Amino acid sequence: MNIIGFNKPYLTGKETTYITDAVNSGKISGDGIFTKKCHAYFEEKYGFKKCLLTTSCTDALEMAAILINIQPGDEVIMPSFTFVSTSNAFILRGATIVFADSNATHPGMDEDSIESLITPKTKAIVPVHYAGVSCNMDKIMAIAHKHNLYVIEDAAQAIDAYYTGIDGIKKPLGSIGHLSAFSFHETKNIMCGEGGMLVINDEQFIKRAEIIREKGTNRSSFFRGEVDKYGWVDIGSSFLPSDIIAAFLYAQLEHLEEIQQKRLTIWNTYYNLLSPLAQKGYIKLPLITTGATNNAHMFYIVCKNLEERTALITHLKEKNINAVFHYLSLHKSPFYEHKHDGRELPMTDFYSDALLRLPMYYELSLGDIVRISDTIKEYFNESINIK
Amino acid sequence: MNIIGFNKPYLTGKETTYITDAVNSGKISGDGIFTKKCHAYFEEKYGFKKCLLTTSCTDALEMAAILINIQPGDEVIMPSFTFVSTSNAFILRGATIVFADSNATHPGMDEDSIESLITPKTKAIVPVHYAGVSCNMDKIMAIAHKHNLYVIEDAAQAIDAYYTGIDGIKKPLGSIGHLSAFSFHETKNIMCGEGGMLVINDEQFIKRAEIIREKGTNRSSFFRGEVDKYGWVDIGSSFLPSDIIAAFLYAQLEHLEEIQQKRLTIWNTYYNLLSPLAQKGYIKLPLITTGATNNAHMFYIVCKNLEERTALITHLKEKNINAVFHYLSLHKSPFYEHKHDGRELPMTDFYSDALLRLPMYYELSLGDIVRISDTIKEYFNESINIK
Repeated sequence: MNIIGFNKPYLTGKETTYITDAVNSGKISGDGIFTKKCHAYFEEKYGFKKCLLTTSCTDALEMAAILINIQPGDEVIMPSFTFVSTSNAFILRGATIVFADSNATHPGMDEDSIESLITPKTKAIVPVHYAGVSCNMDKIMAIAHKHNLYVIEDAAQAIDAYYTGIDGIKKPLGSIGHLSAFSFHETKNIMCGEGGMLVINDEQFIKRAEIIREKGTNRSSFFRGEVDKYGWVDIGSSFLPSDIIAAFLYAQLEHLEEIQQKRLTIWNTYYNLLSPLAQKGYIKLPLITTGATNNAHMFYIVCKNLEERTALITHLKEKNINAVFHYLSLHKSPFYEHKHDGRELPMTDFYSDALLRLPMYYELSLGDIVRISDTIKEYFNESINIK
Repeated sequence: MNIIGFNKPYLTGKETTYITDAVNSGKISGDGIFTKKCHAYFEEKYGFKKCLLTTSCTDALEMAAILINIQPGDEVIMPSFTFVSTSNAFILRGATIVFADSNATHPGMDEDSIESLITPKTKAIVPVHYAGVSCNMDKIMAIAHKHNLYVIEDAAQAIDAYYTGIDGIKKPLGSIGHLSAFSFHETKNIMCGEGGMLVINDEQFIKRAEIIREKGTNRSSFFRGEVDKYGWVDIGSSFLPSDIIAAFLYAQLEHLEEIQQKRLTIWNTYYNLLSPLAQKGYIKLPLITTGATNNAHMFYIVCKNLEERTALITHLKEKNINAVFHYLSLHKSPFYEHKHDGRELPMTDFYSDALLRLPMYYELSLGDIVRISDTIKEYFNESINIK
């Protein structure tokens, strides 16, 4: 039986042609022709005010932390059930992280718990659109507005996902907060191995973002002829990816709709095949929250507890299927457990123990999905027989 | 007359093949097969203890600043005639930069000025091997040893360059300090658009470097089976480049000797053609310092002053030749002029005003070099006739 990996990168066809084109253009450092094409694509398709490709989503979050001028002691509220970079990007600037719990029905952060975590030191809220499924952005933006906080959307998994709030307007995720960060890591719907993007919706940040991304220099202004020489004007880093990366990404972007269609089919097939198990109460299936669309980034199931998930992972592994657990609670990590304020975050711990991600990639075949679903069903049938 | 650009990236042949191979390997995120091949290549060829590819030389310097545990108020000594990232990488961790002047005979930092800049707060010296030409590493290492300081070589331009000190041993640049940072930016001898590498010579830093590079997680240990799960254990960022970048870089590395041979021919041709002007005292040519080899990274000339350089750039531009000046004195930058301690750094200002880089890239033809050299000679002949 062939091995079904958890993820598999693939070529849409033009990646290496575009890389050659980039080299022939005479410039493959940052902000070459394909970087500009990617920026234009995202700005046009999603109405983002300003897009800046970065070498990773982590880097985009670090840019956001610099842009909102995080100082030592500033507090940032975010879910504990997220990737370490959501936190580390702010910790590198001296922030204290205040972790929120996940929802009972969904791994996204519990929006109703946010307000109680706000103190005079709070500077920002960082909602994470887990699995590309929107947080309740109406609630979050209202809290932020009331308390004068910045909202930075961690939209790492949320490309081509939307949210419709009480105003009835369907908005792309990443377009709602002051700043947003996307990932193009190889596990993402659209990818280039490692890569990311900062989206700026609040215009006040645009000029400084260009400077910070260009190692703290006003090089971008210089090339637009706004200043007659460029120099060191701010802190910053090299956040620009090689145009090779942008060329690869652009080839993927040209197939975005086809990719999304395919992933949605995979997702729906999983959902339909596994629904009987959910109906019997053995597992829970992903919830698409009110107002959210499904960008089919991830297919996960939620087991009853850690023991069951571990047994199921082992069962799948024996059948050559790689399913993986996801985040460990950040508030209980070796790095942060003594810095955390001690609150219990039971839902975070629950998803950390019980959530299982199934293989999900463009080239996953219908046969594979059936085999994976059957293997999961088989596990529960056997485990029931044993019990 | 065709335009001779300052730089031109090129393909050695296998770049896109290797990128396709990387995709087919099933993993194009960081630390894939080509990243490992690059690490092995550098470690074997240059005897570096541990190599870690990064998304830029800036990022490698940032890793170094984290690794030596720079704290607010720590002082770091470096030349003012360098790229902003040499400084910003340490400033992001709170360091105060103490700028050293350049040598009278060479843009590299004046090694004899270093000791007077040391205070109880000094934590590190960051020599920059300008144009790939070694600093006097014997002097610098002796000072560092005496005062218990770290040495981080900014070897951005110094791939395949060597230094022979009083011990008579020919050592690759980047292998001498505790840590070193290389660049593979498109202007470098070996390149991938944007890219870099941290070299670790002091073993104490290896384990933490892997953690910091993997977003502050012990993922590398986990994959080696040293720990049974991986989690958040430290600060860190996503310093890993996509394996697409490593695949591109590896294709270049396979041609390193041929590239170096070609660049050295270009460099020597420039040197021979421009020597008459130097002998007449119109310009100065690059100095290869005692004990240093020439990696032919850059060909520069030094004019008499800013006015002459500006006029020469204009003259070259009129003849469709793009020659460019280099660093602006960092101690006089808008960002740092008020933070600098006020010392005059006359040689830094001189190179900032008078140094001119000539076009330098693999595909630069003999005809182009002759044309560039003739155009420079023409400028001086005309300017003499006018005078």
